[in-house]
Amino acid sequence: MRIEQDSLGEVQIPDEVWWGPQTERSRHNFTTGPLMPLSLIRALIQIKWAAAAVNAQEGVIKADIGEAIVRVCQQLTSLTDAELRQHFPLRVYQTGSGTQTNMNVNEVIAHLANVDRQSSQHHQPPVLPNDHVNAGQSSNDTFPTAMQIVAYSALMRTIAAVQSLNASLATLERRHQRTVKLGRTHLQDATPITFGQEVSGWRATLNADLTAITATQQTLLELPLGGTAVGTGLNTTPQITNQVIAQLAQRLETPFKNMTNKFHGLSAHTELTNAHATLKTLATDLLKIANDIRFLASGPRGGYGELSIPANEPGSSIMPGKINPTQAEALTMIATRVIGNDVTIGVANSQGNFEMNVYKPVIIATFLESADLLAGGIAQFDLLLVRGLTANEQAMRATVENSLMMVTALSPHIGYEASAAIAQAALREQTTLKAAALASGRVTEAQFEDWVDLLKMTTIE
Amino acid sequence: MRIEQDSLGEVQIPDEVWWGPQTERSRHNFTTGPLMPLSLIRALIQIKWAAAAVNAQEGVIKADIGEAIVRVCQQLTSLTDAELRQHFPLRVYQTGSGTQTNMNVNEVIAHLANVDRQSSQHHQPPVLPNDHVNAGQSSNDTFPTAMQIVAYSALMRTIAAVQSLNASLATLERRHQRTVKLGRTHLQDATPITFGQEVSGWRATLNADLTAITATQQTLLELPLGGTAVGTGLNTTPQITNQVIAQLAQRLETPFKNMTNKFHGLSAHTELTNAHATLKTLATDLLKIANDIRFLASGPRGGYGELSIPANEPGSSIMPGKINPTQAEALTMIATRVIGNDVTIGVANSQGNFEMNVYKPVIIATFLESADLLAGGIAQFDLLLVRGLTANEQAMRATVENSLMMVTALSPHIGYEASAAIAQAALREQTTLKAAALASGRVTEAQFEDWVDLLKMTTIE
Amino acid sequence: MRIEQDSLGEVQIPDEVWWGPQTERSRHNFTTGPLMPLSLIRALIQIKWAAAAVNAQEGVIKADIGEAIVRVCQQLTSLTDAELRQHFPLRVYQTGSGTQTNMNVNEVIAHLANVDRQSSQHHQPPVLPNDHVNAGQSSNDTFPTAMQIVAYSALMRTIAAVQSLNASLATLERRHQRTVKLGRTHLQDATPITFGQEVSGWRATLNADLTAITATQQTLLELPLGGTAVGTGLNTTPQITNQVIAQLAQRLETPFKNMTNKFHGLSAHTELTNAHATLKTLATDLLKIANDIRFLASGPRGGYGELSIPANEPGSSIMPGKINPTQAEALTMIATRVIGNDVTIGVANSQGNFEMNVYKPVIIATFLESADLLAGGIAQFDLLLVRGLTANEQAMRATVENSLMMVTALSPHIGYEASAAIAQAALREQTTLKAAALASGRVTEAQFEDWVDLLKMTTIE
Amino acid sequence: MRIEQDSLGEVQIPDEVWWGPQTERSRHNFTTGPLMPLSLIRALIQIKWAAAAVNAQEGVIKADIGEAIVRVCQQLTSLTDAELRQHFPLRVYQTGSGTQTNMNVNEVIAHLANVDRQSSQHHQPPVLPNDHVNAGQSSNDTFPTAMQIVAYSALMRTIAAVQSLNASLATLERRHQRTVKLGRTHLQDATPITFGQEVSGWRATLNADLTAITATQQTLLELPLGGTAVGTGLNTTPQITNQVIAQLAQRLETPFKNMTNKFHGLSAHTELTNAHATLKTLATDLLKIANDIRFLASGPRGGYGELSIPANEPGSSIMPGKINPTQAEALTMIATRVIGNDVTIGVANSQGNFEMNVYKPVIIATFLESADLLAGGIAQFDLLLVRGLTANEQAMRATVENSLMMVTALSPHIGYEASAAIAQAALREQTTLKAAALASGRVTEAQFEDWVDLLKMTTIE
Repeated sequence: MRIEQDSLGEVQIPDEVWWGPQTERSRHNFTTGPLMPLSLIRALIQIKWAAAAVNAQEGVIKADIGEAIVRVCQQLTSLTDAELRQHFPLRVYQTGSGTQTNMNVNEVIAHLANVDRQSSQHHQPPVLPNDHVNAGQSSNDTFPTAMQIVAYSALMRTIAAVQSLNASLATLERRHQRTVKLGRTHLQDATPITFGQEVSGWRATLNADLTAITATQQTLLELPLGGTAVGTGLNTTPQITNQVIAQLAQRLETPFKNMTNKFHGLSAHTELTNAHATLKTLATDLLKIANDIRFLASGPRGGYGELSIPANEPGSSIMPGKINPTQAEALTMIATRVIGNDVTIGVANSQGNFEMNVYKPVIIATFLESADLLAGGIAQFDLLLVRGLTANEQAMRATVENSLMMVTALSPHIGYEASAAIAQAALREQTTLKAAALASGRVTEAQFEDWVDLLKMTTIE
Repeated sequence: MRIEQDSLGEVQIPDEVWWGPQTERSRHNFTTGPLMPLSLIRALIQIKWAAAAVNAQEGVIKADIGEAIVRVCQQLTSLTDAELRQHFPLRVYQTGSGTQTNMNVNEVIAHLANVDRQSSQHHQPPVLPNDHVNAGQSSNDTFPTAMQIVAYSALMRTIAAVQSLNASLATLERRHQRTVKLGRTHLQDATPITFGQEVSGWRATLNADLTAITATQQTLLELPLGGTAVGTGLNTTPQITNQVIAQLAQRLETPFKNMTNKFHGLSAHTELTNAHATLKTLATDLLKIANDIRFLASGPRGGYGELSIPANEPGSSIMPGKINPTQAEALTMIATRVIGNDVTIGVANSQGNFEMNVYKPVIIATFLESADLLAGGIAQFDLLLVRGLTANEQAMRATVENSLMMVTALSPHIGYEASAAIAQAALREQTTLKAAALASGRVTEAQFEDWVDLLKMTTIE
Repeated sequence: MRIEQDSLGEVQIPDEVWWGPQTERSRHNFTTGPLMPLSLIRALIQIKWAAAAVNAQEGVIKADIGEAIVRVCQQLTSLTDAELRQHFPLRVYQTGSGTQTNMNVNEVIAHLANVDRQSSQHHQPPVLPNDHVNAGQSSNDTFPTAMQIVAYSALMRTIAAVQSLNASLATLERRHQRTVKLGRTHLQDATPITFGQEVSGWRATLNADLTAITATQQTLLELPLGGTAVGTGLNTTPQITNQVIAQLAQRLETPFKNMTNKFHGLSAHTELTNAHATLKTLATDLLKIANDIRFLASGPRGGYGELSIPANEPGSSIMPGKINPTQAEALTMIATRVIGNDVTIGVANSQGNFEMNVYKPVIIATFLESADLLAGGIAQFDLLLVRGLTANEQAMRATVENSLMMVTALSPHIGYEASAAIAQAALREQTTLKAAALASGRVTEAQFEDWVDLLKMTTIE
Repeated sequence: MRIEQDSLGEVQIPDEVWWGPQTERSRHNFTTGPLMPLSLIRALIQIKWAAAAVNAQEGVIKADIGEAIVRVCQQLTSLTDAELRQHFPLRVYQTGSGTQTNMNVNEVIAHLANVDRQSSQHHQPPVLPNDHVNAGQSSNDTFPTAMQIVAYSALMRTIAAVQSLNASLATLERRHQRTVKLGRTHLQDATPITFGQEVSGWRATLNADLTAITATQQTLLELPLGGTAVGTGLNTTPQITNQVIAQLAQRLETPFKNMTNKFHGLSAHTELTNAHATLKTLATDLLKIANDIRFLASGPRGGYGELSIPANEPGSSIMPGKINPTQAEALTMIATRVIGNDVTIGVANSQGNFEMNVYKPVIIATFLESADLLAGGIAQFDLLLVRGLTANEQAMRATVENSLMMVTALSPHIGYEASAAIAQAALREQTTLKAAALASGRVTEAQFEDWVDLLKMTTIE
C-alpha cells in the first residue's frame, strides 16, 4: 500500500495499481452496477492526449510535462481492454458528472508519467493530475465530449449492421421480385403482392431509419470541450479548444468541431437524446419486421408456413423436432430493451439543473447499451436467420389463389357493392371466388381471367 | 359584467356565470388542453359539503353560513354534467396543485350561497370562498383527496368491465372444454390443448390483473385531507378531519379513512402511481389476449382460421367483403395509450419537491383517461367481439391432427432423440407423424394409438 | 330516419345527418374516448378533393361526378369546426386503419353531392362513397397521408411557439449580458457566469430542438398516397398519384411529394415516430429550463431569489399573499404528458403486421395532442411568465460575491491543492474567500484583486 | 475437443467444459449482451435437484440416475459464482423461452453425473440431459419458475435496503422532531414545519412503497412448474409437481405453492410486471426524496443551505473545495434506469403469443437489474449520505423567521384578504411580517405573538 493525498486528505492505495486517491475513494463509495465502459475511458485518454500537446505548445504547461503526458496517452491507447480495465475500476453509478472517471484518467496518466520521469537521472517536478493532465479542462466539459465521441462511433457500428441486413434483404427482394403471395391487412386476407415487394417494404423502413440515425449522428459532431466548469471556458481559451478539437478530429478521423454554446453542452443532452430516439424507432421497426418473419414462418403445419428459417438449435427441451425463430426472439427482446432505454435517457435529460446535467454516466452507458445490443443483435439476425430464409413459393401461391380478396380487381368494373356480394357468397358457400363471380352473373369467365390476374394485381412490372 | 376582487385586485366577470375572480383569471391564463374532469369537481363539492357541515357544527364557521354552503352543495350535486360544466371552465394544465380548480369550487359555492342569502329580507354577511367554503382546508389537501376519491371510483368501472369480460370468457371456456386444437409456442406448432384450456389461460391472466388492481385500489382509501397547506394541519384539527372523512365515507359509501402521514399525502402519489401501474399491466395483458384472438381469427383463407369474429362493419373501403377485428384494434390502441400514460404518471410522481407535488392535475387526468378508456374499450370488446366469437372446431381438429408435435407423447416411451428423429423425418418427407413413427420401427401401431391420444395429451379430465 | 345500405345490409340513419351506413354502424360500435381530430377530417377532404379532380380529368370517374365531389369538398372546407363536427361523429378508438373515418368522409361527400344533384331537373346516377369519392384510393393510403399532412402542419405551430419563446429569451439575454451571478453545478456553488450566458444556454438548447424538429418534419413530406390497399397501388396509377399529390402540395402550400416505397408507408410510421421523438426531447429540455426558472425564482425569502415572476393569480387558497410559478407548472405537466405519449407512439409503431399498421388513429391523435399541448403551453409560458421575468441583480451579485468558488481563478496561479485548502478554510471559518486567501500567505491582496475578477471569470467580452 | 450429438447432429465441444452440444451451439449463435444471471442458473439447479428426487421416488427415472443427479446438483450449489460461471456461458439475448439455458443446466448436470458414474466399476447407462435431468419438465415451465424464485429473492434485498434507509430516517426524524424550518410548496415559501415532520413524510412514502412491493412479492409465490410444454402438464402429473414445489419451498425456505392455471403462467408475466412496477414507483419516490435532500443541501453559500452532506470525495476536477451530493446523483441515475426498465418489462409482457411469452430472459434480467441497482444504490445512499446528514438548525430557524407565510396563522382571526394584504405589504416594503402586521392596524403585538408561534404552527405536540 502506498499513501497519496488529495484535497480531502490521505488515502491508502494498493501498490500495484496506477490510479490515485480520488479513484480509490470512489471505488469504495460506489459499489453497485456495471463498470464505466472502456470506450469512454479511451475517448477521455484521447482528449488528455490532445489537450497536453496543445497546452504544452501554448505554454500552459511545461513542454517536458506535456511530452510525458502525450507519451503515456499513446501507450495507454495501445493497451488491450483487459489490460486497461485493471486500472479503471469505477462504475457507471457514481457522481453524475463523471468527475471521478475523469480523475481516474488524470490520476493514471499522472502516475505513469511520474514513474517514467522518476526513472530519469535528474530530479523532475511531478506531473499532477489536476494541474497538468486536467489543465484547462473540467470533468464538466471533457466527460460530455467523450460521451459524444463514443456515441458517434457506436452509431457507426449500428449503421453498418443495418446496412448489412439491408443488403441481405435486397438479395431476397431480387430473388422474389415476382413471387406472388397473399397481402394481409388487419391480419385478414387482402390483395396480392409479391414477396419481393413485401421485403422491399422492410428495406424501405430500415432505410428511413438509417436516414434518421445518420442525421442525428451529425449533430453529435459539435463538442462542448472548452466550456470547463460552467460553460464560460474559465482557465482555457477558445484558441486552445479549437486546436484540441482539431487534433481529436484528425486522430479519430471524424470531423468534430467546436460547439457554439457550451452552456447548452454541459447542461442539456438534446443531441444524444434525439440520437437515441432514432435507435428506439429502429427498435420498433425491427420488432415489426421480426414479427412479420416469424409469423410468416409459423408452422410448420399449423401456421402461415410461407417462409422456412434455418435450424440453428433444437427448439425445445420437451418437444422433439421443434425449430424456433430464436434470432427473431433475441432481436425483439433487444427491441424491448431499447424502447425502455429511451425512456431512461429522456428522463435523465430532463433532470439537468442550472449549469449542469448530472445524469451523464447513465445517459452514455444506456446509449451504448442500446447501440451495441442493436449492432450485435442485427448482425446475428442477418447472418443466422435472414440469409438462410427460404420462401415456400408453392405455399405462397396456393394461399393467394385460394383467397377471396382478388375480388378487389372486379370493383372498378362492376362496383364495390356487387364485388362485396361475390366475396361474401364465396366465403359463405366455401367456394372459390371465380365460381362465385360466375354464379353472380355479373362477370364472364373471360372477364374474370382478364381482370383477376394475380401478378398484374401486384402492379409489378 | 360584474366586478369582483381577490387578493391581487379587481377582475371583471361575466354576469351570468357563478365563478369568481380567481377562476376568471385562470381561464384566461390557461387556455391549452382538456378541461378538468367533472368527476373531480363533483368530488370537491362533496368535500366542501362535508367540511361545511362539520365546521358549522364545531363552531369554525357560523351555523347559517354552514347551512347555506351545505344547501348549495346538495343542489350542485344534482346538476347534470352539461349544467355543471358551464360553471367549471378551467383546464387540466393549470397550477400543479389544482388550486384554481379548488378556488373555482369555492367561488361557485360562495356565489350561489350569497344569491340565496341576498334574497332573504335580513341583511346577512356574505359567504366568502376562502374564509368559509375553504375553512380549515387548502387546495393542497382537498385536491389530492378528490384525486383519490375519483380514482377509486374509476377503478370500480374498470374492474366491472374486466369481470364482465371474464364471465364471457368463462362461457366460452365451458363450451369448448374438450375442443382439441393445436398448442403453439414460439409461434411454432406445439402439443395439443383444448380451446377451453387456452381461454382459461386468458381468464386466469385477467384474474391476476383483477387481484392486483383491487389490492392497489384499497391503498387509495387513506385520504390526505386535514394536511392543509404543508401537511401539518394548520388551521384545522384531526377531530374535524376525522368527522369530515366519516361523512364522505358515508355519503359515498366507501370506507375512506384518515391518512396517517399527511406530509406524504401532499408530496408523493405513491398509491396512485402503483394503482395506475396495475392498469398498465392489465393493458399489456389485453394486448396479448387481443392479439391471440385476432391471429386465431386471421384468414379467412390465408391465416390460422380457428376463430370467426362477428361482422360488425364492412372492413375495407377498397376490398369488398373484408371483415376486420376492429374491436381488437380499438382495444390494443387503448393499450398503447395506457402504457404511455403509465410513464407520464411515473415521471410526474418523481417530480415532487419538498412539501408538494405540483403535477397533480396531469396525474389524475391521465389516470382517469386510462381507467375510462379501459372500461369502455373492454366493455365493447366483450360485447361486440368476444360474445360473438365462434370456434371453427373442424379447422382446429384438422390442424392439430396434421401437426407433428404429438411426437412429444412418444418421448417418455422411446426417448427424446428417437422421437425428434421421427418428427424430423415426417417433416422432411411431408408425411404424417404416424407414418414416420411406424417407419422408424420404434413404435407399433397399437402403441401409437395408445400413446398419441390427442385429448389425453391435453390432460383434460 | 332514412334507410341506407352498405355491403353488410341495411342501416337506419337519422334524417338530419349527412353520413351514411358505415359511419352509423361505427358510432354505435365505438363509444369510448375522444372524437377523431377535425384537422384530420379536413386533410381527408383535401385528399378527396384533389383525387376527384384528377380522377375526373383522367376518366376514372365521370366529369360531372368529379365536379360534384369537388364542389362539395370546397364547401366542406369552408365550414367552421362546430359545423363540421356534427357530421363527423366517429372516435379515435375505432378500426386501426381509420377505415371508418375515411368512409365517414366518403359518405358525407357522396350524400351532399347527391343532394346537390337531386335538386337538378334531370335524373342523374348517384355519387357513390366507394366507387366515386374513394375511387383509386383506400383508407390504407388516404389515412396515413392525412396523418402526415396534419402532423406536418402541427409541427409548424410548435416550431412557431418555440421561436417566439426564443425571441423573448434573446431579449432577456441581451438585457443581462453582463449581469454577474453564481454558476451552479451539482446544485453546488460554482464559478461565476452572467445571467445572459445562462439564458443563452437555454436558447441554444431550444435551438438544438428546433433543428431536430425541423429535420424530422421534412421527412413527413413523402406521402404514401397511391399505395391503395396493400402498397401495390392496385386500382390506381403512379401518374394519377403524382397529380393528386401535386394538387395537394399546391393547395396546402407545402412541398409534398410521392413516397418511393408505399409498402413502407402503410405498414410503418418511422417518420412520425421520429418526429414525435423530437417533441419528446423538446419536452425534456423544457422541463429542465422551467425547473431552472422556478428554482431561481424560489423564495421570496427562503429560496434562491434571483428571479421574480409575474403575479398572475393568487397562489394559495389557504396561504395569503403567495405567488406560484403556475405557467412553469402547466408547462412541466405538459412535458410529462409528451414523454408518456412518446412511449405510446413507439409501442404503436412496433405493432404493425405484414402490409399494415393498425394503430394509425392512436398514433396521430397522440402526436397531435403532444404538438398542440406544447404549442399552447410554450406560448403561455412565454407570454405570461418569461416576458415578465425580472432579474434581481442585487441579489445575484450579493450571492456570487459571498461564494467560494471564485477560488478556481487562483488555481492556475497557485495550484489546485493550495486553492482547495483556501476554499475549505473559508468555509470552515465562515469567512470570505479573500480573507482566507490572504491568511494562507499564498496570495497578496493585489494578486487577489487582479485574479479574482468576477466579470473576467465569466470570460464575457 | 470432444464430439457430442443432439437432435440436429454432431457438435465439437472443448474438452474442459461441462456443457453439451446445445450450449455449444447457442454460445456461438448468440454473442451479444450480458450473460444470463447466475442466480437464475442456481434456481434452475434447485429445480432439477427437487425434480430428480421426486421423479426417482415416483419411478419416472431410475433410482440410481436420480441419486446421481441429486448429488451433482448438491455439488453445483456449493460452487462459487466464478466457478459456476465457467460452465454457464450463455447470454440473456438467446431464445425467448430460455430453452438454451435450461438445456445448459441439463447438459452440465448430465455430464457431471456421467463422469461420476463412469468412474465406477460397473457399466452404467448414461444420464441423459432431456430424458433424465429434464424428465417431466420443459424450459417453458422451469424457466418461468426460476424467474419467480429469483425475483422473489431479489425483492427481499431491495426491501431490506429500504427498511435500513427508513431506520436511518427514523433516527433523523426523532432528532429533529421540534427543529422548526420553512415549509415549501410550489418551491415558494409556505407555512412552518419541523424537519422531523419533513423526514417523516419521506419515511411514510417509503413505507407506502414497502407495502406495495411486499404485496406484489407475495403473488410471485405461485409457481408455474408442472405446466411443461404448453401448460397442460403433458408428461408429468400434478402429484409430482406438488412434491417438487414442496421440496423447493422447504430448501429455499419460502412458501412457494402450485399455480392454479399454468396456461397463464407460461404465456403472461402479470405478477412480475406488477412487481417491477412497484420498484418503478419506489424509484420515482427516491428521485423526489434525493432531490429534496440535495436541494436542501444546496450551497454552501448560494443555495438553501439547510443540510450538510458528508464530504466523501473532492467534488470537482477544476473547482477546488467543492463537495457534491454524489450518492444522491448515483441513486437518481439508478431511478431513471428503473423507470426505463419498467417500460421494457411492460412491453415485453404485452408480446406473448398463444401458449408462450418468448421475452422471458429480458424480463428477468431487467427485473434483477432494477432490484439489485436499487438495493445497492439505496444502501450506499443510506450509509454514505443519509447517516452523515446534519441539519443546520440555525439556518433553518433564520429562514423561517424571515419568511412571510406565517401570515397564514392570522387568517382565521382577521380573514384571508386582510392577511394577504399584510404579506404583500411586507414583501413590497422589504420588512418583516410582524412590522407589516402591526402597521396594518388589524393586529396588536400581543395578538401577533400569541397567534404567530412557529412551533405551534407546525401543530407538533
